[in-house]
Amino acid sequence: MNSRKLLIDCDPGIDDAIALLLAFASPNELQLLGITTVAGNVGPLLTARNARLVRELARREAVPVHAGCDRPLLRDPIDAGHFHGPSGLGNTRIFEPAAPLAGGHAVQFLIDTLRHHPAGAVSIAVTGPMTNIALAMRLAPDIVPRIHELIVMGGARSAGGNITASAEYNIFADPHAASIVLRSGCPVVMCGLDVTHQVRATEARVATIRALNSQVAQFAAELLDFANRLTPNAVHGVATALHDPCTIAWLLQPRLFIGRPAAVEVETASTLTLGATAVEFRADHGRPFHVQWLTDADAEGVFALLTERIGQLR
Amino acid sequence: MNSRKLLIDCDPGIDDAIALLLAFASPNELQLLGITTVAGNVGPLLTARNARLVRELARREAVPVHAGCDRPLLRDPIDAGHFHGPSGLGNTRIFEPAAPLAGGHAVQFLIDTLRHHPAGAVSIAVTGPMTNIALAMRLAPDIVPRIHELIVMGGARSAGGNITASAEYNIFADPHAASIVLRSGCPVVMCGLDVTHQVRATEARVATIRALNSQVAQFAAELLDFANRLTPNAVHGVATALHDPCTIAWLLQPRLFIGRPAAVEVETASTLTLGATAVEFRADHGRPFHVQWLTDADAEGVFALLTERIGQLR
Amino acid sequence: MNSRKLLIDCDPGIDDAIALLLAFASPNELQLLGITTVAGNVGPLLTARNARLVRELARREAVPVHAGCDRPLLRDPIDAGHFHGPSGLGNTRIFEPAAPLAGGHAVQFLIDTLRHHPAGAVSIAVTGPMTNIALAMRLAPDIVPRIHELIVMGGARSAGGNITASAEYNIFADPHAASIVLRSGCPVVMCGLDVTHQVRATEARVATIRALNSQVAQFAAELLDFANRLTPNAVHGVATALHDPCTIAWLLQPRLFIGRPAAVEVETASTLTLGATAVEFRADHGRPFHVQWLTDADAEGVFALLTERIGQLR
Amino acid sequence: MNSRKLLIDCDPGIDDAIALLLAFASPNELQLLGITTVAGNVGPLLTARNARLVRELARREAVPVHAGCDRPLLRDPIDAGHFHGPSGLGNTRIFEPAAPLAGGHAVQFLIDTLRHHPAGAVSIAVTGPMTNIALAMRLAPDIVPRIHELIVMGGARSAGGNITASAEYNIFADPHAASIVLRSGCPVVMCGLDVTHQVRATEARVATIRALNSQVAQFAAELLDFANRLTPNAVHGVATALHDPCTIAWLLQPRLFIGRPAAVEVETASTLTLGATAVEFRADHGRPFHVQWLTDADAEGVFALLTERIGQLR
Repeated sequence: MNSRKLLIDCDPGIDDAIALLLAFASPNELQLLGITTVAGNVGPLLTARNARLVRELARREAVPVHAGCDRPLLRDPIDAGHFHGPSGLGNTRIFEPAAPLAGGHAVQFLIDTLRHHPAGAVSIAVTGPMTNIALAMRLAPDIVPRIHELIVMGGARSAGGNITASAEYNIFADPHAASIVLRSGCPVVMCGLDVTHQVRATEARVATIRALNSQVAQFAAELLDFANRLTPNAVHGVATALHDPCTIAWLLQPRLFIGRPAAVEVETASTLTLGATAVEFRADHGRPFHVQWLTDADAEGVFALLTERIGQLR
Repeated sequence: MNSRKLLIDCDPGIDDAIALLLAFASPNELQLLGITTVAGNVGPLLTARNARLVRELARREAVPVHAGCDRPLLRDPIDAGHFHGPSGLGNTRIFEPAAPLAGGHAVQFLIDTLRHHPAGAVSIAVTGPMTNIALAMRLAPDIVPRIHELIVMGGARSAGGNITASAEYNIFADPHAASIVLRSGCPVVMCGLDVTHQVRATEARVATIRALNSQVAQFAAELLDFANRLTPNAVHGVATALHDPCTIAWLLQPRLFIGRPAAVEVETASTLTLGATAVEFRADHGRPFHVQWLTDADAEGVFALLTERIGQLR
Repeated sequence: MNSRKLLIDCDPGIDDAIALLLAFASPNELQLLGITTVAGNVGPLLTARNARLVRELARREAVPVHAGCDRPLLRDPIDAGHFHGPSGLGNTRIFEPAAPLAGGHAVQFLIDTLRHHPAGAVSIAVTGPMTNIALAMRLAPDIVPRIHELIVMGGARSAGGNITASAEYNIFADPHAASIVLRSGCPVVMCGLDVTHQVRATEARVATIRALNSQVAQFAAELLDFANRLTPNAVHGVATALHDPCTIAWLLQPRLFIGRPAAVEVETASTLTLGATAVEFRADHGRPFHVQWLTDADAEGVFALLTERIGQLR
Repeated sequence: MNSRKLLIDCDPGIDDAIALLLAFASPNELQLLGITTVAGNVGPLLTARNARLVRELARREAVPVHAGCDRPLLRDPIDAGHFHGPSGLGNTRIFEPAAPLAGGHAVQFLIDTLRHHPAGAVSIAVTGPMTNIALAMRLAPDIVPRIHELIVMGGARSAGGNITASAEYNIFADPHAASIVLRSGCPVVMCGLDVTHQVRATEARVATIRALNSQVAQFAAELLDFANRLTPNAVHGVATALHDPCTIAWLLQPRLFIGRPAAVEVETASTLTLGATAVEFRADHGRPFHVQWLTDADAEGVFALLTERIGQLR
């Protein structure tokens, strides 16, 4: 089996960190060309630092980390520090990673990497606001047809929103960027809340990870524990949803998910529903289907995969 | 048991017609004070005629029918004749009913009726665009606290839209009116697509109604057959959803449904998501909960009720 | 010369009061069928009281005053008490007028009056938010072609806004109502800020009115003095603009004004420009021209007319 | 007198071409660091070619031309070929210029140039959609405080719009980019339609330029003739407005203009008023004044300057 060339654009963040671990732990399937970071869950300095920190825990310093945009295209920045802790990584012990950021802006790195490889050779997993991707597409329109596909954590249809009644956080945090990307014609696999809300980090599942008894496993378990202790989850007796890792899990084992072809547009005009995703499944409604919208996940399978792979990082 | 005083504001329409039959057939529980009609599924002359026609089939000519608004507040009219047939009543035999419309505009009748009865004595079932109700509230603000509650067919959260990717038809057809009503502070029970899509007129259920072998049962069965033969339903092998009758079924047997308190706002500003309903279940998000948003229906129970009651109309 | 049958829909308000005086003082040209009031510059109880008060000062108690809507259609109410004083009539002595309100809602009175007279016989001057007119048009669409024309104080093109950077107060206060009226197809003469800002109540002009030395003239002069002493005017050394009286002046002497045919639409979707009027003078842009948009006024002529007429009220 | 370091970001276009000539002809005052082009009046290949063509006519091949964005950020492209002719340069003879485009994207060149010079040393004249500038600001936020000021042709307040009833073309063509730039905090001088409509290329003024009798003067005169013969101008007997050159004229002789401090926001949410500029002159309305909004121009002075300078290009 050939490995897939992959870029990860992220804003770690608790679940981004888990997604990175899952990717780092899967070198046979995923050839990581680099990681780009963006302002989102926490500020841009923290997301860049956190990506390097997770990289160091996974001992994958050869994968370059490039820092990108420090704010969304148009809207005011809105972080999610209340969900991820002030550092972005819950209560885990923060340290300054030894390996530095790579030089060069994330957007330029994305462009250069896509141009350097054959058309269709590189996929991108996006687990934060899509600011970097949107800017790259506008600066270098030639890259759009070179992207094999984007695997995005973002959006919601049947799940309703999480940051507002109508919108999921990643799209809400930069709806204009999401609109640019979703109208680019690039094939997109969307892991929205409809599917990520099915993948819950229950106590039993976290315990299984913790029992791996490695430093990385401890780190992952602490992150999930932190999220599970947050008031909204604690109050409702609901385990935290494993949003971002679904993108990597889909890359590794797409059969863990079911999806439907769809046309997806992003609300950018209205205050009430800003960042909502209008998901059209009806083929006769005039818009082309560029999106594979995931509707169902095998949560046990996702956690089995995650646990197995984290067990390989030592 | 005391019967409940009820006004029905509707735009028949196939499923409005079934809803009217269910109400007409339930005189012990529902004291029908009158029926008001509005432009919607088909034009205003047809909805008024159809309400009278259904009334005549049910032999309930003592219930007055008042015609109301002939178009939405702001947006251009959009009918749904493609779902209801040119007459609004599928392929059923259309005749001119003997009993005439009552004099007086529907909006004035709503106002007068609410003022005439003690505060809190009268409920309103709304199965069309909310134009009449909104105008009545603006013309006579004193009626708002006199309404016991509104039971509305409209909106969608987890079901997505039906007329667009984001909006359900009744709200989309007059989003400004819906916004007025939902911000009035009046208690509202909302039967959106989330719940009506669970109540499907399967062939077996329609056959049970047809087997009642009365004129009214034949009429109801023909309406549902027509809807089931429409291309979208036929192609997808899915039976038509029984939208409007859910409002009356909830009035008769609320235990057939499960709901949650919610704050609901209507999108009026954006073209993409016009008429979408932003449903907020989180109590700490600052908006008061005036809505009971139905999430689950006992479809077998609804059809058992409907069948039993239609059997009493002869 | 035949007099013109006129309804005045207003929210007095300093300049509405002057407009009413000008109309009351012109019985040869204007046959006043009634006055309707609406929430606007001040609350609905005050605008109705103020209309009666001005009527009593003018000794025209035979003209009925009907109170109308107590709030705008959709948006939250926004008054302009800071410009008109808490009573709505500056610092003038407020008294309770003897003659009562007429029974019946303003909207019903507008409908009944228009239906009672031959089509095309009645004009309406509108000097407040257009809530009453919009509701009347939706409740009774048959009245639209019966209106001879609407003469509206509202809107702005070259003047920019007054309540926001983009919007004039009357339109901003109920943009949805204004949109309904301007899309009705009814002929409209619009006195926007472009023209009313040319008609300034300079000290000399106010002094000429005061010198008439009647109770009514004193009242008018006090109102204008109050407006001229308001900080924004005082600071910029600019006399207050005589907005609402322009509508009546146009009815009396249209040659005091220059206008252009235009298509006018109202912004209802955006927060930033809510209530802005998009004024299209280009005939080839697809929208019919129902509006005569006034662009120039002979300010000296308007004040000469106003002064002469106020002189006749004793 | 020190010369001012200047970048010109443009989409030539007839009036951009005249603006470029005016800048090329003023080497004592303006040190041209480069020209960047963007899709706008005509497509991106044509604007880049036209900038090189004008550069060759002016014999200023040492000034680099960098091509930039080929479309607006979010909205669909809308050109203005009907005003500028299919080539973008009216009926003038088109030739392929000898000197090539500079390598490197316009956005990167803007960033590099601003970083290379001391903070505050470089101004930018923008005579097209602001896509390049907005992207540069998002990619490299450090450049914002390095810009001395932006001199922009764009927007309208008292003049109404030209491309729609509410919007001026340059802002309408990329309203999201304009919003990014106007909210950046960078000082901006805005030459909107309010002022450019005062600067008309009358027959007499064009004749004076033509009489200079040089190749460049013929070229400029032909461009203005073409614009004056366009139907809208011809029908209304109005000479074409000299939009873009006002930016360069202001740089050369700011006393030819009068302006006011203002806060300016761009409409991005509504279809009706998309691209409208909300211009707030009132200091107490909470938004900082980053804009000098030009209100008056000395048209004779602008043309005298233009004629004199074109006379120096031989």
